[in-house]
Amino acid sequence: MKYRVHVTLKSGVLDPQGKAIHHALEGLGFDGVRDVRAGKLIELELEDDSAGEGDIDQMCRKLLANTVIENYRIEKVEAAGQRS
Amino acid sequence: MKYRVHVTLKSGVLDPQGKAIHHALEGLGFDGVRDVRAGKLIELELEDDSAGEGDIDQMCRKLLANTVIENYRIEKVEAAGQRS
Repeated sequence: MKYRVHVTLKSGVLDPQGKAIHHALEGLGFDGVRDVRAGKLIELELEDDSAGEGDIDQMCRKLLANTVIENYRIEKVEAAGQRS
Repeated sequence: MKYRVHVTLKSGVLDPQGKAIHHALEGLGFDGVRDVRAGKLIELELEDDSAGEGDIDQMCRKLLANTVIENYRIEKVEAAGQRS
């Protein structure tokens, strides 16, 4: 089983990395960008007989995301055999 | 317009951050994790009259992704008004 975990900063939390990207894009001449937020993407490949989504949720709470300032979203991708 | 850019390391490229996460998950007692890959997630909010996906592609090539070692994927999310 393959899962993708999207970790993003909660709205209202300052995002200096996103600000830096925004500034750099403007410097490159890309106008029309209103806002940039930077987050993390973690791809997990689990053994086929493992617990699945409940386990991933625990991993997010314990390690992958800081739930005080970050949201996370779990997305199931596909069986491990068919890699994109 | 809101877009999400997923930046992931190409397969074959060493991923020390992913390795560290994998190791930490095992330390927390999560068995059954076969592989972990860490990537970046960049959320862009563009002005409604801006060029759209072609522009985002240029941003990826010029700044957001290092195309030598990274793949990127552009996902259109929704109109800017309806924030998730």
